[in-house]
Amino acid sequence: MAVGLGPLPTMHPVAGVRLGTASAGIKTPGRKDLVVMELAEGSRVAAVFTRNRFCAAPVLVARQHLERQAPRYLLVNTGNANAGTGERGLRDARDCCAALSDRAGVDAQRVLPFSTGVIGEPLPVEKLREGLPAALAALRDDGWPEAAEGILTTDTLPKGASLHVELAQGTVTLTGIAKGSGMIRPDMATMLAFIATDAAISQPLLDRALREAVRYSFNRITVDGDTSTNDACVLVSTAASAVGLSSEDDADYRRFIEALTDLCRILAQAVVRDGEGVTRFITVAVQGGASEAECEAVAYTIAHSPLVKTAAFAGDPNWGRILAAIGRAGVDDLDVDGVRIWLDDYLIAERGGRAEQYQESEAAARMSQDEVTFRVDLGRGDAGATVWTTDFSYDYVRINAEYRS
Amino acid sequence: MAVGLGPLPTMHPVAGVRLGTASAGIKTPGRKDLVVMELAEGSRVAAVFTRNRFCAAPVLVARQHLERQAPRYLLVNTGNANAGTGERGLRDARDCCAALSDRAGVDAQRVLPFSTGVIGEPLPVEKLREGLPAALAALRDDGWPEAAEGILTTDTLPKGASLHVELAQGTVTLTGIAKGSGMIRPDMATMLAFIATDAAISQPLLDRALREAVRYSFNRITVDGDTSTNDACVLVSTAASAVGLSSEDDADYRRFIEALTDLCRILAQAVVRDGEGVTRFITVAVQGGASEAECEAVAYTIAHSPLVKTAAFAGDPNWGRILAAIGRAGVDDLDVDGVRIWLDDYLIAERGGRAEQYQESEAAARMSQDEVTFRVDLGRGDAGATVWTTDFSYDYVRINAEYRS
Repeated sequence: MAVGLGPLPTMHPVAGVRLGTASAGIKTPGRKDLVVMELAEGSRVAAVFTRNRFCAAPVLVARQHLERQAPRYLLVNTGNANAGTGERGLRDARDCCAALSDRAGVDAQRVLPFSTGVIGEPLPVEKLREGLPAALAALRDDGWPEAAEGILTTDTLPKGASLHVELAQGTVTLTGIAKGSGMIRPDMATMLAFIATDAAISQPLLDRALREAVRYSFNRITVDGDTSTNDACVLVSTAASAVGLSSEDDADYRRFIEALTDLCRILAQAVVRDGEGVTRFITVAVQGGASEAECEAVAYTIAHSPLVKTAAFAGDPNWGRILAAIGRAGVDDLDVDGVRIWLDDYLIAERGGRAEQYQESEAAARMSQDEVTFRVDLGRGDAGATVWTTDFSYDYVRINAEYRS
Repeated sequence: MAVGLGPLPTMHPVAGVRLGTASAGIKTPGRKDLVVMELAEGSRVAAVFTRNRFCAAPVLVARQHLERQAPRYLLVNTGNANAGTGERGLRDARDCCAALSDRAGVDAQRVLPFSTGVIGEPLPVEKLREGLPAALAALRDDGWPEAAEGILTTDTLPKGASLHVELAQGTVTLTGIAKGSGMIRPDMATMLAFIATDAAISQPLLDRALREAVRYSFNRITVDGDTSTNDACVLVSTAASAVGLSSEDDADYRRFIEALTDLCRILAQAVVRDGEGVTRFITVAVQGGASEAECEAVAYTIAHSPLVKTAAFAGDPNWGRILAAIGRAGVDDLDVDGVRIWLDDYLIAERGGRAEQYQESEAAARMSQDEVTFRVDLGRGDAGATVWTTDFSYDYVRINAEYRS
C-alpha cells in the first residue's frame, strides 16, 4: 500500500548509540513492540513534543526528565499510547523508567519513556518490565533496522534514513528512524522519530538544529489533520566523532542543519508515503503568497479537504474542489482572479476558472500518477510553503473503523 | 441512508409565493433540475451567502441584483454550480436572468439566480432557457414539495419545514426548503435554502431575523468541513398577511425569530441527516467554555476529525480520539484535568482519562445508536455551542470519488 517507499537503506551505526528490540506482548503476542536505545555517557539530547493539550503521560515524564538530567536511555513501547490515562498513566510511565534504570544502574530520571498505540487503555507495565531483559541483551550498535520495525503500529513498512555528512572538520554520521501512519498532523513533531549523530554539538545548537529541521519536515506533513497526543522527535549527539559544532556562524553547523533537514524530510515523507490507506503521495506547494503563514494555511486547507482527498483517490482532476478549498482558507483579501493552479507542470485553473488550454485527459493523466504535485500561485507576494499529504481511500475508513476491534 | 429524516411534512403555502419546477436536462435528462419562485409585488427579500472567496457567479450576480431592486423571481438550477467559471460564468448567470425576465416582463435585475452542482463546467444556458416555459407554466402556490425535489443534487431526500406561528397580531405562515449533502460547512449560510413568510416585515428587521436564525442553525452544521462556493439562504416576506413586524422590541418579532430559528434548525439538521454517506447523526454539544468562540472551535474540531468520524461509523466509543481532538482545538490554556466527556448522558472521560465507572459495553450501546450526542464540559466557564455532523463512511468516499464520473 505504501507509495514510493522501498526497503530500509543501509543504516550506518552512530558511535555511542546501541539499540535493542524485543517482543513484550503488549498488544499482539510475538510482535516486536519494545525498543531500548542506549546513549553513551556524555551524549546530549534535544527533543520536540506534541502541542496537543491532552499530551500523553510519557510525553509529560520525558519532558520532565529531560529538564533534569542528561538521558542515558530511551525506552519505547508500541501497542499502547499511555494517553488519556490520568494520574495512573504518569505512575506507569515512571514505573517503566524505574524498571529499566534498576537493570541499567542509572538514575530513573536518565530514562526517557515513549509510547504509541491505542489511547485510553492502562499501560501493561508488567509485560513491559518482563520484556526488558531481552531488549537489553539485544543492544547492538547496528540495531537500527530492528528498532525501526519495533516502533511501528499501523505502519506497513519500517522508515529510516542514514547519511554520511562531509564537513570541513571531517565526516559525521546522521541516522534516524520514524514511525507514524495515522493521527498525523504534527504541531511540533510527528509521532515518534529518533535521530542520532556522532558530531559533538553544544546543547543550544543541538536544540536549534532540531527545531529548524523539524519546521520544514515533520511540521509540514498531514494524513488526517489529527494531531497526536504522543508526537515526539528526538535528536541525540553522542560526540563520539572528532567533529565539534559549537558556533552558529560555523559553516559546518549550517551544513549540518541542511543535512539534518534532508534526513528529517525523508523520514517525514516516509510517514506520509505509508499513511493510513494511502494510494497517492501528494505534494501541495503554495507560492506567491504575502506571507509564509497564509501559504501554509492554504496548503493545509487543501491537504485536509475530504473532497480534494477523495477526488485524488479517484484520480479525478477535480480542480474545482482545490479552488473551493483555497477560497475558504482564511485569506480574506484574496483576489481570486490572480490565483493559478497546476497539476505538476500542467496549468489547470486561472482567472477564477478553468485554464484556456485545459484538457480533461491531460489533467487526468497527471492526477492518476502515484505521486502528484498540486502547485498553487496566489499571485500576491513572494512567500511559499509546501506540505505533503495522502489521498483519502476506502482503506482509510476501514483501518480507522476497525482499529480498536 | 438518511438518518431520522422522514417524508416532507405538510407544506403550507405562503400567500404571495408561487413555485414552478421543470426538467431542463442540465446534467441528467428527465431529472427535475429547474425551479422558479415567483414573489408577489411588494415582497421583501433578505439573503446570506457563502464567505468562500471563490464564490460562484450566481452568488455575485444575486448579491448585485439584490442591492439594486426588490426581487420578483428566484431562479434555481441544479446539475451545474456555475462556479470557477470566470467572466463567462457571470455572463451566463446574467443571461439566465434575462431569459426569465423577458418572459415574465420584469427587469432582469429583479431575478436572483442560484446554481448548485458540479464546479468548473460552463453552465448550459440554452438548456436552462428552454426549460423556462415549463417551469413558469407550473407556477402554483402549493408547489413547495416539487420545488424541494427540484433543488436536490446528491441529496437522497427532499428537505422542508412549515410552521403556523401564533403571534399577538394573528397567525403567520413560515415555510422553507433546503438542499445540501456534501461540501457542507457553512460560513454564512449553507448550500441553498429558501424560506418564505406572509408576515410583513421591514427590511432591516428581515435582514436581522435571518442573520440571527442562521447563526444557530445553518452556521452550526458540517459534513466535511468544505465550505461551498454556492451557499445561499434566502428569506422572503410577502406581506400578504395582516401581521406586520416593524419594531425590534415587539414581542411578536422575538417570537417570529424564535420560530424562524426553529425552522432553520430543522432544515439545517435535515441537511446533516442526509449528509453524504451518513449512517449516524451526531450532535456535538460543548459547554463550560470561557467563550462561545472556543466552544465552537472545540465542537468543530471534534466534528471534523476523520478519526472521530470513522470511529462513529464503526460504532466504536473511541473517546481517546474525542479527547485528542479537544486537545488540538487551539484552547491553549485548557486544563485537561477539568474536561469531562459524555456519550448522551453516560460519562466516559474525566480527569484526563477514562471515567471511573466506564464500561465498554455501556458506551458501545450508546455509540451504536442512529443518533448520538457527544457532550463535552470544558470546566472553565458558562459559554456553550452545539454543532451537528455526520460520521464518515465507505459511502462518503464512494460518493465523492465517483461524483464527476
